Amino acid sequence: MLSPLIDQLIRSLRILPGVGPKSAQRMALYLLERNRQGAVNLAEALLAAAEQVKRCRNCRTLTEQAECALCANPRRDASLLCVVESPADIFAIEQSGQFSGKYFVLHGHLSPIDGIGPAELGMDELVARMGQGVNEVIIATNTTMEGEATSHYIAEKAKRAGVKASRIAHGVPIGGELEYIDGGTLAHALMSRREL
Amino acid sequence: MLSPLIDQLIRSLRILPGVGPKSAQRMALYLLERNRQGAVNLAEALLAAAEQVKRCRNCRTLTEQAECALCANPRRDASLLCVVESPADIFAIEQSGQFSGKYFVLHGHLSPIDGIGPAELGMDELVARMGQGVNEVIIATNTTMEGEATSHYIAEKAKRAGVKASRIAHGVPIGGELEYIDGGTLAHALMSRREL
Repeated sequence: MLSPLIDQLIRSLRILPGVGPKSAQRMALYLLERNRQGAVNLAEALLAAAEQVKRCRNCRTLTEQAECALCANPRRDASLLCVVESPADIFAIEQSGQFSGKYFVLHGHLSPIDGIGPAELGMDELVARMGQGVNEVIIATNTTMEGEATSHYIAEKAKRAGVKASRIAHGVPIGGELEYIDGGTLAHALMSRREL
Repeated sequence: MLSPLIDQLIRSLRILPGVGPKSAQRMALYLLERNRQGAVNLAEALLAAAEQVKRCRNCRTLTEQAECALCANPRRDASLLCVVESPADIFAIEQSGQFSGKYFVLHGHLSPIDGIGPAELGMDELVARMGQGVNEVIIATNTTMEGEATSHYIAEKAKRAGVKASRIAHGVPIGGELEYIDGGTLAHALMSRREL
């Protein structure tokens, strides 16, 4: 019922995470009816980013520069290295305002079934980084099974490199009400209790 | 913290309806980390649609052809003309499977404050269509104040052209429970009651 080009646009929009058929249709019609310039700008931004964005040579986060802004910043503490699964995690940690060290992005977690081993996660680069004045590796991988396995693997590597390894704390979120917290989180919070 | 090209991509994604800063960031990182080909395809679909999609010469819906598929379909009943505010409304009505006539798209509603008068809505073309074998104009504009005003305007034009005008029914949705229906809809449903 819609013309081929509009259909094609709707199908292309559906690859975006969280966009179903109804939202994709709404987006396509919005752009065509009211914001063609926005559509052209978006197309250009997509092409420029898809072509030029690579990985930072130090921390492997996404950037079109050889070195990302955080790695290039001399005021960041190079002795603290936080290991995360994805660039979005850097964003989240930066927003906390509690970390002034550097980062290393794995772009995933160990997952042998999907063919993702240490090489794909840049473990050799990570171990090389540990030898460059890093005092502590803070492991902030996710709390999934794969994230935990990856964390153990990195802790092992750090131990062998003579570098302190730590894991960010997991437990009840600040402001969280106990009755709404899942059992797994509560079990972890109890086991990891701190003496006052 | 994110590089300029990624920032630009996130800003460009935010013009999409229903996309906030968090979703835009998620979309940008998803495309760059996992689906660059999808990003390129989306860019191409956007450029092709933004450049080639125009309005159908008969019904004003969006299409890259001179005449849209519905207007070109000889099995659609040309004596029934349904007037809608946007191409998305055609989609919704077609999905009901209850209408086999033709359409006319206003691309908005009368709104003098925004400078949208009869000319912008193609009223001359609509009146011209009424003289081309149309027996009934079914007005399916929205039930907003502006949609109602537009409906009255079109009904007046139809009367002058000697064409029957009708309005789609408004009331309690099928499957809707009375206790959850708003007062305005219920008031309308009571006023528009039909004798059994």
